Amino acid sequence: MSSGEIKALVFDVFGTVVDWRTSISRQAAEFGAKHGVTADWDKFADDWRAGYGAGMAKVNSGEDEWKIVDQIHRERLEVILDEYGFPNINDDELTEFNKAWHRLDGWPDATTGLTRLKSKFIISSLSNGNIALLTNMAKYANLPWDAVLSAELAGKYKRHPRAYTKTAELLGLEYDEVMLVAAHNDDLRGAIKAGLKAALVTRPDEFGDAKKPDLEPDPDFNYFAKDFHDLADQLGCD
Amino acid sequence: MSSGEIKALVFDVFGTVVDWRTSISRQAAEFGAKHGVTADWDKFADDWRAGYGAGMAKVNSGEDEWKIVDQIHRERLEVILDEYGFPNINDDELTEFNKAWHRLDGWPDATTGLTRLKSKFIISSLSNGNIALLTNMAKYANLPWDAVLSAELAGKYKRHPRAYTKTAELLGLEYDEVMLVAAHNDDLRGAIKAGLKAALVTRPDEFGDAKKPDLEPDPDFNYFAKDFHDLADQLGCD
Repeated sequence: MSSGEIKALVFDVFGTVVDWRTSISRQAAEFGAKHGVTADWDKFADDWRAGYGAGMAKVNSGEDEWKIVDQIHRERLEVILDEYGFPNINDDELTEFNKAWHRLDGWPDATTGLTRLKSKFIISSLSNGNIALLTNMAKYANLPWDAVLSAELAGKYKRHPRAYTKTAELLGLEYDEVMLVAAHNDDLRGAIKAGLKAALVTRPDEFGDAKKPDLEPDPDFNYFAKDFHDLADQLGCD
Repeated sequence: MSSGEIKALVFDVFGTVVDWRTSISRQAAEFGAKHGVTADWDKFADDWRAGYGAGMAKVNSGEDEWKIVDQIHRERLEVILDEYGFPNINDDELTEFNKAWHRLDGWPDATTGLTRLKSKFIISSLSNGNIALLTNMAKYANLPWDAVLSAELAGKYKRHPRAYTKTAELLGLEYDEVMLVAAHNDDLRGAIKAGLKAALVTRPDEFGDAKKPDLEPDPDFNYFAKDFHDLADQLGCD
């Protein structure tokens, strides 16, 4: 039934398509200035991000009921604003600042690289970010998705296999007709384990000097590229 | 909490954005020629389409388990090919012809009108068509959606209220911040009943001479336009 031919590329988004750390750091600095708080805003971004994996793990384990990433971000935000000495901030302003994650800049090759890849393949997000977040981000960062798909539609977060297989099913494709593109080896291992193909695109600057990025692929990954244009070249896109 | 301001426009697709009848009739004529069958292909399109409402009604009533529109189309196709005297056709070819519904031409104003509306609003499909069908159609007909959403994600077909409310929730919006754009008054009534806003865009040629289109809005609809450009003008888009 399956040709094994790649028909869709599905993308991890945070870190792979967009530079979350610089974007959050910049917006946090503006927010801090408004409220008279000074801090290391790169570290603030890392501290905010630290709630993300923990929040999703509780959902996948069943300890917490399903909650979208906007909610995970919000709960973590309330903790760290206190730690960083922010004054009380009203609910509407918190909701708005929490949407900083909807306003992340693409890496320099994101829009042009995705546009090339789109000429030959279906391209879709496959992020843990919720649909609203991904839709607003696509508009903000000019990401030309054919479809906006998310772990939200599976009710399980990556690296749970269902997040990958549900996405392929929604696209009407066999698992091995879909390739995950990501900057993170553990995400790509999750895709391979679920039956998808895998392409590592390196993003050496994702974590600044806070953490080492993945720069070497596992041997069973299908492609290894330094950015989306390199991947487009290897996949024979114009 | 809700401003009541319109933030997203969600679109019925079959008949509102794309001209399904002419597109199916043309592809059916090609398919007939290949297999030595002659027929009134407009009528064939209407007969194929006739399975759609009946199939969805069985799902919403609980008589049938959830099935996507591709499957509803396929079951109906097997019945009418027999009625029209087609010879036996192999499974792969049937699957391919069934995807005629993924290859529907937009009305002349579809791409340019949606592009104008996209400059000011989030624009998304809200169709009973499944995600794969809508994604392939967007690529084929150059429909610049911000998000591709479907009743498939609610597990209930329009006019069930959940199809409308689930779409607003996935977009992170209050129901009255979302307006359905459709050529069909009953769909718009479903949206209003679910708490959304409603805009009738007339498509006088949708059914050819087989059936009368809706050309007059209910008094509680919010907008009434003759095409997407007229709607864009009324909504203050560039």
